[in-house]
This record gives sequence, C-alpha cells and structure tokens, in this order.
Amino acid sequence: MTTTIPQTEYTQRIQRLQQKMLAENIDGFILSQNVDLYYLTGSMQTGYLIVPANGEPLYLVRRSVVRAQQEAAAVVEPLGSFRDFGARLARAFPPLAPPPAAAQTTGQPPIRLAAEFDVLPVAQLQRLQQVLPHVAWVDGSTLIRETRMLKSPSELACIREAARVIDVAFEDALSKLQPGMTELEVMAGIEYAIRRQGHLGTMRMRGYNQEVITGMLGAGEAAAVPTYFDGPAGGQGLGPAGPQSASRRPIGSNEPILIDIGCCIDGYVIDQTRTVVIGELPEDLVRAYETAEQILRSVESMLHPGTECEKLYMLSLQIAHQAGLSDHFMGFGDDQVKFLGHGIGLEVDELPVLAKGFRYPLEPGMVIAIEPKFTFPNRGVVGIENSYAITDTGFEKLTVSREGLIRL
Amino acid sequence: MTTTIPQTEYTQRIQRLQQKMLAENIDGFILSQNVDLYYLTGSMQTGYLIVPANGEPLYLVRRSVVRAQQEAAAVVEPLGSFRDFGARLARAFPPLAPPPAAAQTTGQPPIRLAAEFDVLPVAQLQRLQQVLPHVAWVDGSTLIRETRMLKSPSELACIREAARVIDVAFEDALSKLQPGMTELEVMAGIEYAIRRQGHLGTMRMRGYNQEVITGMLGAGEAAAVPTYFDGPAGGQGLGPAGPQSASRRPIGSNEPILIDIGCCIDGYVIDQTRTVVIGELPEDLVRAYETAEQILRSVESMLHPGTECEKLYMLSLQIAHQAGLSDHFMGFGDDQVKFLGHGIGLEVDELPVLAKGFRYPLEPGMVIAIEPKFTFPNRGVVGIENSYAITDTGFEKLTVSREGLIRL
Repeated sequence: MTTTIPQTEYTQRIQRLQQKMLAENIDGFILSQNVDLYYLTGSMQTGYLIVPANGEPLYLVRRSVVRAQQEAAAVVEPLGSFRDFGARLARAFPPLAPPPAAAQTTGQPPIRLAAEFDVLPVAQLQRLQQVLPHVAWVDGSTLIRETRMLKSPSELACIREAARVIDVAFEDALSKLQPGMTELEVMAGIEYAIRRQGHLGTMRMRGYNQEVITGMLGAGEAAAVPTYFDGPAGGQGLGPAGPQSASRRPIGSNEPILIDIGCCIDGYVIDQTRTVVIGELPEDLVRAYETAEQILRSVESMLHPGTECEKLYMLSLQIAHQAGLSDHFMGFGDDQVKFLGHGIGLEVDELPVLAKGFRYPLEPGMVIAIEPKFTFPNRGVVGIENSYAITDTGFEKLTVSREGLIRL
Repeated sequence: MTTTIPQTEYTQRIQRLQQKMLAENIDGFILSQNVDLYYLTGSMQTGYLIVPANGEPLYLVRRSVVRAQQEAAAVVEPLGSFRDFGARLARAFPPLAPPPAAAQTTGQPPIRLAAEFDVLPVAQLQRLQQVLPHVAWVDGSTLIRETRMLKSPSELACIREAARVIDVAFEDALSKLQPGMTELEVMAGIEYAIRRQGHLGTMRMRGYNQEVITGMLGAGEAAAVPTYFDGPAGGQGLGPAGPQSASRRPIGSNEPILIDIGCCIDGYVIDQTRTVVIGELPEDLVRAYETAEQILRSVESMLHPGTECEKLYMLSLQIAHQAGLSDHFMGFGDDQVKFLGHGIGLEVDELPVLAKGFRYPLEPGMVIAIEPKFTFPNRGVVGIENSYAITDTGFEKLTVSREGLIRL
C-alpha cells in the first residue's frame, strides 16, 4: 500500500509554516534537510526549498531534477551553479534581495532567513552565508518541527499502516520464539518481516548522532545495559561500534524480553514496546510491569486536547514514586532519561516531548509514543509503549498489538 | 567474530591527528560525531572528545559514562553541567584557557579550536561558542577524515570479514533468485542474511542527508531511475519517501539486475556490485558490462602507491569515451556523478575520492571502492564494483564475490 497525500495538503503545510514565520518576523526559510523537504513538497531530492513569508515556494534541486519534477507539489527548477544562488533568490523573491547600499548604511534591518540549525551542518550554513552575505540567519528548527507536529488524516493513515505491519512482525516473532535463540536472531526475523511488508529499511531520527535502527530487542541483563541512545533502554548491541539494540546473547526462560520495535512505511514510523517472558517473571518485575501499565492507563485518562505535555510526565513520576520504583523509572541511576514519551511521524523524535518544560497543550493531530519502562540492572527491563493520536475528544490508540505481560 | 583493536592503536590515531593539527596551528580539536569518537576512543557514547595539540585527550561523556569507561581507550569523565564546560576545559588544558585580559587587548591571536563542520549541526556549534567565547573556531573535517583515510591491519580485518559476510549473502540470494520475485523480496533476503551474520543494522554515511540503507538492488528500468543518492545508480525505491534501493517491481528474465550491496561488521563497511541476468542480456548491454570490467582491470594496473587519485578517474573517462559510452557512464545525462570510486571504512563515503581535483597519491592503507557502471534509461544499469586496500607494492582485492556477468 502506498498512501497518496492530496496535493492541497502541501499548500496547507506551507501556509502553516508561513504563519509561524510571519509571527517571528522571518522573511524567508531555506530548507534543505531531506525529511523537511519531503514533508513540504512530497519529494526528498537534494536541494533547497525556499519558502518566502508570503507567496509560493520554489524548490531548487541539485539532483535529481527529473525525479523532483515528477514528485513535488512545489515548482521545481534546477539549482544550477551555487555561485548564482544569491542572484537567483533575488530574482525569484524580490523582498529577499540585498537592500540597496543606502538602506544598508542607514541601518535598515537585514533580511532574516531561517534554516534548520538543529540538523544543518556548519559547513552547509557557511556556504549559504558566502552567497547570501546580506542575510541575518535565524534558527527555524522549532518552526518546522512545530508545523510537522500536527498530523493530517493522510499522515495518520500511513502511521496506522506502520502499526499494522509491526503487529504482523511481532506476532510472527512470538510464534517462533524459543529459549536459546539469540536476541539478534529474533530481531533479524522481525526486520525481515517488516522489510518484506514495505519497511523503507531505515527509521529516521533527527537528533545529532542518534540512530534508531529498528528499535531494540533485549533480554535479561542485556536490555538493562546503559548506552548513549536517547531512550529508557537502548540495549547492549553487537559491540562498541553498534552499542544498542540486539546482542548475541541467548534468550533464556523466566527473564524479561523487551521488544521495542518500529518500522517505516511510506516515510512514517510507528513505535511500540511489549514485554514478553518464556515462563514466568519474578514477582517484583511483574509488579513493575503492572505499574508501567498503570501509568499508561492513568496517562490515557488525561490524553485529550488541552492537557499540558509536561503534566503527563509529572503524573508518571508520581505513580512510579508511589510504587517505590523511582530509581528504576526510564533507565537506572545516572542513565535515566527525563521524559515519558515523544512525538512520532516522519522521524522518531518529533514534537511534542512529554517532559518537564514542554508546556504544549495537547491538540488534535498530535501523535505521541508513550513508553513507561522500569530498568533493573543485571536483571532486565519491563514496560509497555503505545503510540496515540490525539483526537477532538480524546485519543485514538494507533498501536494494535496485544497488551499485558505476554507469557509464552 | 568481533575484532579487537589494540589499545596502542588509539594512541597512534590521536598522534596522527595531533600532527595534522600542529601543521595547521590548531590548538585543540573538540570532536563529537559518533563515528569520529569511536575511531579515536573505541567508544561512541554521547559527549565530547577534547584533543589538545599536545598531550593526552579527555573524553567528557554525557551518556553513558559507565559504558564509555568500559570501552574507551581515552580518559573518561562525566560531562556534568554544560555551563561549566569552559572552566573544565581551562583546568584540563591550560593552553586552551581564555587569554588574560591584557593579552586580549594587545591583540594576541585567539585560541584556535577545530570541530567537525561537515557534520556538526549549527545549533551544536552555537552551544560551544556560548561556553567558549574566546575561541576562533576552524573546520577540522578534513583533518579527521584524512586521519581516518589510512587503515590499520585490525581495521582491514574488519573490512575483510564484512566482505566475507556479503559474499555469503550474495550467493544465498543467487541460489533463490527466480523471475517474478520483486526487488524488495530479494533485497530483504540479503538483508536478513547479513543481519544474522552480525551486520549492525545500518551502514553509516557522512554526507548531509545521505542514507545508504544496505545499498541497492535494481532490475531493468527501475535501476536506471535517477535519484538524489550520491552514486551512479540509486534505484527506484519504495516511493518518494524512500527514493532509492529496491522497489516492488518484479524481476524479469533477460534484463540486467544490478546488485550493489554492503554490510557493516564491527563498524566497518564493505561495498560491492555485481551484475546478474536470468537468461541473457542484449548485446550492447553485455558490451557495456565488459567495458566496466575493462575499466576495472585498467585501473587495477595503476593501483599502487604514488598514483594520484584523479588519474584513475581520468583513465575511466577515457575508456568510456573510447567505447562510445560517455553519456551512460556513472549515471545518465544530468544525473551523472563525477567520480569513479570512494574510500570506505567506518563510513561509506570516506576519503580518498576518485574524482577530478583529488590529488592524493595512493598510499598503503587506503581502502577504496571502485565502481564503473553504465546507465541505460528505461533499460537498466550494468557494472561492477570491488573494494581494494592499497598495499606497499600494489593492492589487495577485499571483495571476494565471483566476477563477470553472472548468468542464471
């Protein structure tokens, strides 16, 4: 299945971005990150999308122009020589042209152009600065991330399809899981199942240095090994060069198997976690798992428009505290992460974040993965993660896999 | 298999980087990209590796400190509060401290610190500039990329293992290939085979916006679809959100099947391409394939220390021209790429590049993927790619898969 995004939707996306630009006195936005280009045009060919504060955008493409012309909702032109970029911009968007010399000396404020400072490499900005020396550059990361925060019905359809695909792969893995199989074997099977169903082969993540692969599968103490990954449980991985996700550890009985997986269908990701055990878990881990579900149910009761994001995180801290599990919540000790959930969409780490300081009120169209987990060093990780869309009246649960501690 | 890098090797790597820093009057290098951190320390936990021009480096780690301490050859300390970064740096490395106020007014040159401008996001540099306001920042990308250009015996061992793994997966795929299978099905099988053998699940690429997934598999016209990917044949892919690699097109008889695949073992990648056909190819495509092999053999005859990289590209252009295939070489028309090969190692797009302007003389320890290919729009792509290590006297071919046009 390939979901078609209606052409009018791209116009709406551009308009939403332009409204935010106008509110911040930004004259133009030069976007170049592949995911942002895709979001705003329907194509992710290499180049620059120039969005003026008023008027139509222009997609200057280096490669492949032909493909961008076939795919993009925006007007596509060949980028040509980068040296001419400034003149090109001035012709296409007179308000973005360098001010006349007289205005420069009388202190007229410079043109303000935004770029994606959170992902744009320094060397790339320097190239733009060379050809556009009259510009005051500002960080547009939050503007584009906030524009992308609210999903349309067609985006939700992609995420629902990803949720269906991951559930098929999950049930397939459960049907084959045996003690003695390595984490890697089980994970490879899941990846094979999602790929055949149309997983793009990568899950995109915006954060510097972050790689999500396809999530993690970790059993017993291997799941609880701390790592750099910006999540509650990254997993041991295959070695220092791949320090997350599945390891070569054989899976045993009566230990928690954390299966935190996702896939990417038509660009959109899903994220879900289930806890599985072959046999039975020790009582305290069962209780911790149940506390994770209790957190999820309590958070669900507040999942409706108007709730401030950080309130959901605070609620989860409170329940973990009441259960005497604060030290184990969302990682252990110094390696705890300070959030309960995160937006998902074209990337795994979208807005909003359920963390202190994130005061966004929930709005219809937000899609959030909520992942209460408890880490027990040398023993394992238990927890659950669902992805939700906020609706007019509450939420739609997007993940469809069965819940509860899954005993095989 | 997990290859162990000797601890002394990290000292040598740091020393090679320091020599380059001294030659460019750089007082210190603050590295933060995950692959560069791994190369210089043996760990890729999130943080900053501070390399002074003289003396021992210090790895300030945000997360996970415990894991970095277990893995890294360098001294690891917790990063702590980022606000204290400047004071911390001054204590650990007095030469990098802010100059006394008197020196500032007498025009003493500022401290010169390097960072990886080719990958470091603008927002990350701005954070460093805030806590280190006395610093003149310079681009250290080329220094670290040149340091990584020459591979050690233990690095070569990793690449040889990756070459073995991809060959097993390739032969497995050939044994199952049938007309009517989709590109995606065959590619999923290859990915499953490499993953079970220890592929990390990702192949890292340094270029902004570039994603390599696991290469591409393309049959007939789908292989020849132009795309953004910085290579001669990116493939059609699964849609505009994944515009490269395998598509859902069924593979037919008597058409070229380009299998350009790699994997990542212990962090190191291999890259190889073979052309396969079920049945027989039209005569002109057979001739183009043979021209690709002829280019490879001619280039091999110059693969020894001292040959300038760009000469190999020029030679390939000349042979393509003599064969009347210039328009088809390394892509078609406006979508041609202007190189013949590229370094590989921890990333797929390393130095040296076999392209005009790259005057590096070949040196023992360089590892280069050389990939002459010919693109025929609406018909397909044919070609071959081997990876080579330069030795004292010539080269070692690292890829081990059988050559020639493979007829099934």
